[in-house]
Amino acid sequence: MKAVRLHEYQQMPTLDEVPEPEVRGPWDVLVEVGAAGLCRTDLHIVEGQWEPIQHPRLPYTLGHENAGWVRAVGSAVSNVAVGDTVIMHPLVTCGLCHACRIGQDSHCENATFPGLNVDGGMAQYMLTNARAVVKLDPALQPRDVAALADAGLTAYHAVRKAAPRLRPGTHVVSIGAGGLGHIGIQSLAALTTAHITVVDRSEEALALARSLGAHETVLARDDAQVADAVREVTDGGAHVVLDFVGEHGTELLGPQLLRNRGDYFVIGYGGTVRLNTIDIISREINVVGNLVGTYDDLVELMTLTAEGRITLHTQTYELDAFADAMHDLDQGRLVGRGILVPSR
Amino acid sequence: MKAVRLHEYQQMPTLDEVPEPEVRGPWDVLVEVGAAGLCRTDLHIVEGQWEPIQHPRLPYTLGHENAGWVRAVGSAVSNVAVGDTVIMHPLVTCGLCHACRIGQDSHCENATFPGLNVDGGMAQYMLTNARAVVKLDPALQPRDVAALADAGLTAYHAVRKAAPRLRPGTHVVSIGAGGLGHIGIQSLAALTTAHITVVDRSEEALALARSLGAHETVLARDDAQVADAVREVTDGGAHVVLDFVGEHGTELLGPQLLRNRGDYFVIGYGGTVRLNTIDIISREINVVGNLVGTYDDLVELMTLTAEGRITLHTQTYELDAFADAMHDLDQGRLVGRGILVPSR
Amino acid sequence: MKAVRLHEYQQMPTLDEVPEPEVRGPWDVLVEVGAAGLCRTDLHIVEGQWEPIQHPRLPYTLGHENAGWVRAVGSAVSNVAVGDTVIMHPLVTCGLCHACRIGQDSHCENATFPGLNVDGGMAQYMLTNARAVVKLDPALQPRDVAALADAGLTAYHAVRKAAPRLRPGTHVVSIGAGGLGHIGIQSLAALTTAHITVVDRSEEALALARSLGAHETVLARDDAQVADAVREVTDGGAHVVLDFVGEHGTELLGPQLLRNRGDYFVIGYGGTVRLNTIDIISREINVVGNLVGTYDDLVELMTLTAEGRITLHTQTYELDAFADAMHDLDQGRLVGRGILVPSR
Amino acid sequence: MKAVRLHEYQQMPTLDEVPEPEVRGPWDVLVEVGAAGLCRTDLHIVEGQWEPIQHPRLPYTLGHENAGWVRAVGSAVSNVAVGDTVIMHPLVTCGLCHACRIGQDSHCENATFPGLNVDGGMAQYMLTNARAVVKLDPALQPRDVAALADAGLTAYHAVRKAAPRLRPGTHVVSIGAGGLGHIGIQSLAALTTAHITVVDRSEEALALARSLGAHETVLARDDAQVADAVREVTDGGAHVVLDFVGEHGTELLGPQLLRNRGDYFVIGYGGTVRLNTIDIISREINVVGNLVGTYDDLVELMTLTAEGRITLHTQTYELDAFADAMHDLDQGRLVGRGILVPSR
Repeated sequence: MKAVRLHEYQQMPTLDEVPEPEVRGPWDVLVEVGAAGLCRTDLHIVEGQWEPIQHPRLPYTLGHENAGWVRAVGSAVSNVAVGDTVIMHPLVTCGLCHACRIGQDSHCENATFPGLNVDGGMAQYMLTNARAVVKLDPALQPRDVAALADAGLTAYHAVRKAAPRLRPGTHVVSIGAGGLGHIGIQSLAALTTAHITVVDRSEEALALARSLGAHETVLARDDAQVADAVREVTDGGAHVVLDFVGEHGTELLGPQLLRNRGDYFVIGYGGTVRLNTIDIISREINVVGNLVGTYDDLVELMTLTAEGRITLHTQTYELDAFADAMHDLDQGRLVGRGILVPSR
Repeated sequence: MKAVRLHEYQQMPTLDEVPEPEVRGPWDVLVEVGAAGLCRTDLHIVEGQWEPIQHPRLPYTLGHENAGWVRAVGSAVSNVAVGDTVIMHPLVTCGLCHACRIGQDSHCENATFPGLNVDGGMAQYMLTNARAVVKLDPALQPRDVAALADAGLTAYHAVRKAAPRLRPGTHVVSIGAGGLGHIGIQSLAALTTAHITVVDRSEEALALARSLGAHETVLARDDAQVADAVREVTDGGAHVVLDFVGEHGTELLGPQLLRNRGDYFVIGYGGTVRLNTIDIISREINVVGNLVGTYDDLVELMTLTAEGRITLHTQTYELDAFADAMHDLDQGRLVGRGILVPSR
Repeated sequence: MKAVRLHEYQQMPTLDEVPEPEVRGPWDVLVEVGAAGLCRTDLHIVEGQWEPIQHPRLPYTLGHENAGWVRAVGSAVSNVAVGDTVIMHPLVTCGLCHACRIGQDSHCENATFPGLNVDGGMAQYMLTNARAVVKLDPALQPRDVAALADAGLTAYHAVRKAAPRLRPGTHVVSIGAGGLGHIGIQSLAALTTAHITVVDRSEEALALARSLGAHETVLARDDAQVADAVREVTDGGAHVVLDFVGEHGTELLGPQLLRNRGDYFVIGYGGTVRLNTIDIISREINVVGNLVGTYDDLVELMTLTAEGRITLHTQTYELDAFADAMHDLDQGRLVGRGILVPSR
Repeated sequence: MKAVRLHEYQQMPTLDEVPEPEVRGPWDVLVEVGAAGLCRTDLHIVEGQWEPIQHPRLPYTLGHENAGWVRAVGSAVSNVAVGDTVIMHPLVTCGLCHACRIGQDSHCENATFPGLNVDGGMAQYMLTNARAVVKLDPALQPRDVAALADAGLTAYHAVRKAAPRLRPGTHVVSIGAGGLGHIGIQSLAALTTAHITVVDRSEEALALARSLGAHETVLARDDAQVADAVREVTDGGAHVVLDFVGEHGTELLGPQLLRNRGDYFVIGYGGTVRLNTIDIISREINVVGNLVGTYDDLVELMTLTAEGRITLHTQTYELDAFADAMHDLDQGRLVGRGILVPSR
């Protein structure tokens, strides 16, 4: 089968012919890939940034946002059957460690991460296990949902954690209305009754935000102007700020946008949060970390997607054209999420 | 009556003869002060540090940790009666704003703060309102509990918030076993089944910690040594770190002591938290602010105190000797919490 | 002023001329009544059913669902001002008891209940206190919201309690789509992403339910048919059943409609729940009581109403025509909620 | 190996020689049984009461409260190793269904129940899977903990669910201080700061309760006397009632012992709860079902046991003497929990 494989850091991956993987263990699931999302993380992998964290054995197959159809299952698999459409949780988890036992499987102590430390989904077939596959409503197409497996899941997970605070009459501010942010805004509109204010540097992104459920938008020019605008719109500060950027200064601005007892959710990353302890205690505010999402988060996200409450803007490429897609992404020519589709 | 009043910043307060306050409104409560705690904040008030925050009209009476006996009540007061022993919540709240209506009265939008912006309890009598007084078990003496009204309440509030995370088999680390910390440790032992590890620079404080319920203690010499010791004791990191210091580097060390999904509670203050967003998200950790406590927190703390589960180490002075007490505190000669007691 | 007063049980109330109430205490609020809801409870009061529970001193003024405009306030009132449009929480609470202090004011130990044990709102003016009034968006008219003060609040309170269980992909069943139920269905659609199934004996009520957000409706003929239909629609049983009827057999049918770990919410009343303990434990199901709602619930409900997410069907009468309204209600000729409006 | 096997209902099981089970699948775990608890359920199994619920294929091996030492593991087992001391969760779960994924594995849709529908632990060896075994502190002996696997777990699960309600100053009432109750009382003392009142018909059981942490005990003679006594001790009613009996009238008495907003926990079973809906709503009380416990509950219970906070009274028999043990249990001669120990 064909697979996009990385042989050396700083070198473009190549489309190789490799053997199809096979079901060996009782929990194995073989999936024919219907679509694999392409994401900025893939560019960083090629640059070598993830080597010290995930240290995969080269060569290996990229692709960590995957969906497709089940083609074979191990003897103990009871949750999916051959022919099912599935999306794959980014982690292949053990089901035995404490995190897995209490439903916090995104912190599994024994997980593999296909596309980052073992073979991923930029290929015609992919091997995963029963704990990673979410059976989809047959109406959903892999190409329409694949990119929700990681980026969308991360945004949804944060909103789900924030939702209990976002009662009628509360204010939430989303910093960023891009790849993660536009899923976050739709998730907010679905899960909460809060007043949603979106901050972004792009008027186009803000227009999209309004069409997805934002009640107010603030075009960001500088921090003082954003802080003033948000304070006015939110009547003194937000109950929750979701920062989908987390760098270039939003990590310093974000906490300023809170009212007392507010929560600053860190989702995007790159910068450094700096907060005086006197500010933390006198306002009794919190900083909340967010990482991917659980399997159950992905199940819920797929339910909302099947109901038409959350949709994704995408641009599709043939798997063979992966290099074009990577170039387009790198040079800002890719609008929406890039999706690689193997020919069938 | 006698009252310790501040006439000018940077000048020692004086013991003045002033008129006794009187009940005027239907919710007023007149309390004969049995004891007023002395706290480092009082030194900072005299230095003028709180002027820009609370801007009281000088002269006024100090004392923000107060307990005593009810001597008169307004027409609408139904929760206490003349003769009751009471401790006073540090804030006199309105009962009308949103924070008050949902039980978060420590964020009341209309509160006064006796001893900081209106007359406090370093006097023979003090005027407060029905929403500020907690009726005490008659077995409790004002001098034994007064210092719990603010310092103790702050420590208890943080532990109460942390308790749902601290299930059997979890690890909590307390940084500091001093004024707040020693109440925090007793609160942890009462409210949780967690394994309690205490870090302090003083061997004496650690000995006290062990006698109050700490399972392990770590004498702090430098950050690397503390981090190593805690990692070993906690089997990889704490579920919750309570930082009762919040300065001199503990605000940087604290988050390092967490395991994934851990909570760093900021209680003490002075320093600046600095955390890379990549660390916040990849470990999915949280920074949690803590401010005083609610009225209900104080009720619970008094219940535990009446049951003998929480006790306070104190050193008592006559009210007339307030200047000696302030000097002793300033020069580190005061062991335990200083308590001023008016002569009856 | 004019007031509808009950002089004797089993006798029609009369429209009397009585003195206007006046602000006396610092927390008093005088409201010019804009609208008073009429409810089946008023008929029961006249019949004498509430005498043993509330034992009011006759004569007194009826009306427990009230909204209007503030005309005078006591010296300590800070949350509303003369001219504000307000709706009144059914209870006038103390702000001092434990229930009030933790935000559970609907269980206030010292509350009065205007219209049931003191003078209510079927009059031109009404005296209440600052803790009972919710300031409204000026766009809201008293006649459009008054009936939400009690019936609507009860339905909303139950839905708010159920909402954390009602995640994407879950099933909720509403038994009844009448006065309470049609507010409950709108609340479910606003606060949750659950799949909403409504059961009622009236095809007309089900048509209304569909227009308000119900995904499925079941016309109830007998218990077995309802149980079968619900089991199929909910894929094995509901996560939550909200019973707005609570009599005539729904209290026995309701728990049967649950899946394992489900919650049966009792809101309507009249019947007797009977459940074998073996069923309770083997299915690990719960029975959840619901009573009116808190002040904060009413604030949230008014927010949703101002946003247009919840609306009420009403039929308006002049206050002078209260007897016509009561007759119409008694004889089933009143469609929607009856509203009495004093002439201005 | 030897095994206690049931060949026919209404007939005493026999001690048979059968082949040792073997590890076949990658998740299998072979345990040398150190102890198997004997419980009234075993008598009911022999009588045939569980046939219609679990319908096992006869003959099969009894024993559903098991602990021992790991002797062999499948290729995918990462949480235990040969030689480990383990206790077995009563259910062997799938790790794939929704309940398993969210940490509610006691509601697994695909579980087997050794001792009830497949071979259990009254034998020298037993086959289970990796998801059922909890690794024990080496200081714990199988014979000291085996009976916690089911009876103890059930009591602990209920207390864990109740604990968030049981803050300082609250009241909890335990009905029954027998097999489940005496674990429940110890769990309450470990997990909560509530005031614990125990009701039982046996003065001996109440003496045990006091030694385990009960603050008050009420010797039950009749319902009115119990209701009066509890009302006085609890200052108007309990916040939580834990009913470890659930029959012979406790299921009717229990809800009467609550204060407003209280929770009645059903743990024991046999009777029928009957509650007027008007009582449920006017007091806003809840009925809470409880079933066994999750794997994580068992982990926590074992932690508390290893710490010496929870201990079990037992009487030990050789496995060969199982018939004596069953007779003793049947005739009330067995004090504490009966434990069967295979000779090694």
